[in-house]
Amino acid sequence: MAPRTLHVTVPDIGWIDRLSDLQDVDLTVWDFSDPQPERHIDLAVRPYTVAAAGLETLDPSRLSVIQSQALGYDGVAETLPAGITYCNAVGVHEASTAELAVALLLASQREVDRYAREAGQWNRRFTASLIDRRILLVGTGGIGAELEKRLDGFDAEIVRVATHRREDDRGVVHGNDELASLLPTVDAVVLAVPLTDRTEGMVDDAFLSALPDGAIVVNVSRGKVADTDAIVRQGGRIRFAADVTDPEPLPADHPLWSVPGVLISPHVGGMSSAMQPRIDAIVRAQVKRLLEGREPELVVVSG
Amino acid sequence: MAPRTLHVTVPDIGWIDRLSDLQDVDLTVWDFSDPQPERHIDLAVRPYTVAAAGLETLDPSRLSVIQSQALGYDGVAETLPAGITYCNAVGVHEASTAELAVALLLASQREVDRYAREAGQWNRRFTASLIDRRILLVGTGGIGAELEKRLDGFDAEIVRVATHRREDDRGVVHGNDELASLLPTVDAVVLAVPLTDRTEGMVDDAFLSALPDGAIVVNVSRGKVADTDAIVRQGGRIRFAADVTDPEPLPADHPLWSVPGVLISPHVGGMSSAMQPRIDAIVRAQVKRLLEGREPELVVVSG
Repeated sequence: MAPRTLHVTVPDIGWIDRLSDLQDVDLTVWDFSDPQPERHIDLAVRPYTVAAAGLETLDPSRLSVIQSQALGYDGVAETLPAGITYCNAVGVHEASTAELAVALLLASQREVDRYAREAGQWNRRFTASLIDRRILLVGTGGIGAELEKRLDGFDAEIVRVATHRREDDRGVVHGNDELASLLPTVDAVVLAVPLTDRTEGMVDDAFLSALPDGAIVVNVSRGKVADTDAIVRQGGRIRFAADVTDPEPLPADHPLWSVPGVLISPHVGGMSSAMQPRIDAIVRAQVKRLLEGREPELVVVSG
Repeated sequence: MAPRTLHVTVPDIGWIDRLSDLQDVDLTVWDFSDPQPERHIDLAVRPYTVAAAGLETLDPSRLSVIQSQALGYDGVAETLPAGITYCNAVGVHEASTAELAVALLLASQREVDRYAREAGQWNRRFTASLIDRRILLVGTGGIGAELEKRLDGFDAEIVRVATHRREDDRGVVHGNDELASLLPTVDAVVLAVPLTDRTEGMVDDAFLSALPDGAIVVNVSRGKVADTDAIVRQGGRIRFAADVTDPEPLPADHPLWSVPGVLISPHVGGMSSAMQPRIDAIVRAQVKRLLEGREPELVVVSG
């Protein structure tokens, strides 16, 4: 096979430096907001923080593969022109997102958010803990597995729920149809499900009402998995810690910000020092595959 | 052996209710601030949040055993009258304290304290993480073991230091004499040592200077293990998260409160929902032993 040059675009100049050692690759910057390049692009790395919007205007005769830096791809299948292949970033964000979920959960249980707000005051009181508690993990995908790994050492009982009941080497995974009977028995719920027709609005008034007083719901999935108005209504009785909200960004004057027991981070689950080495490795692996004439990996919408 | 009645004092009325099922026990309230009861006390449970001060005035002819609700007992050996036995609360606070240490560490790495202070703002930026990082655990006692268990799942490398170098089933425990060479190689330090002549002031300017820029020191041991002035001097370069300070309580106008990258909780490591069932179990076990004519367990200063 004759050597060829792979045409790759990256979303900013930092990428050019980091990938400058790659052989047989022509690297240029394109951030998807400028017009699509005239020449044919074999692989285009999307900016990290960008919505699905805009994909529908791409010309598939000049673009083969898009590598997203995100895990979620809701809306992509509906808008991506036929002929373009879309790959997501499996393995880049799951651990970092699970870490943030545990950080939010622990901060809420031990009132670290209160200590941060009350700096200067020495105000001691007993708080909740994870010790001896039951934690419901909703979702057993990549983030769910990383959550389970992290929560294992905290002397809590982990109860897992997925779409369908099954057993694995760690025991029972409950089915979604068991949620109503499980919710009254747990102290914390961590949401790590993709946004689908089934999960949209899952955390509604009925879900929250089934939880015991003082329970906490942690959401690191998608904002629309929880009904924001229901969270506001149950505020004070149920605590809520979330990296994702609906709407997003959450406006400064939104009532959710000031509900007692609510802690919000601005959708930064994947925005940690863990990201860059992992997304770089994925792009390098894709370049290698394409140079070898193979198909890309991590394809979620196939052109 | 003829049945006898054990005279036990407890520090508040809540204890009377919780222990009301005990047989052959006479329970009365004494919080150590009122005068010592005239009658002989077999077992006196101390209030949780009380300093060693005051022990020297106790009459050992009327008091056999003190059960502390705390793990630390610095100052007790120097003040306890001969003839009284002092027991600490091993197993009650270690997990809860380790949990708070991880909560403070994660909150600092992922800037959860900033999100709490900036509620209403949607201010996204990349943060540190524990993933791929090296964490130095100083101290391999009860809290150290609980820390290690909790940090195991976070994709970090755990480096352990104790007084003397040794190996166990998890690998090398470095000796204290290796600290100077280890500090430049780690991203985080968690202090879980007792306060002794050797550990007092251990975290001084030299210790902090040896750490790389942006490193974080988490202290859940005793405030005097770190030199507060040195922490203030290194603020901005080194981050600091602590449940214990020197002095304590930290005065409202103390400069440490406003050093960038400093997060402080008011000595609440053991003050969680995990405590009560565990200290109750210890007191029940001591009552059982004393009724059986055996010696108490968990003796740290023997009369």
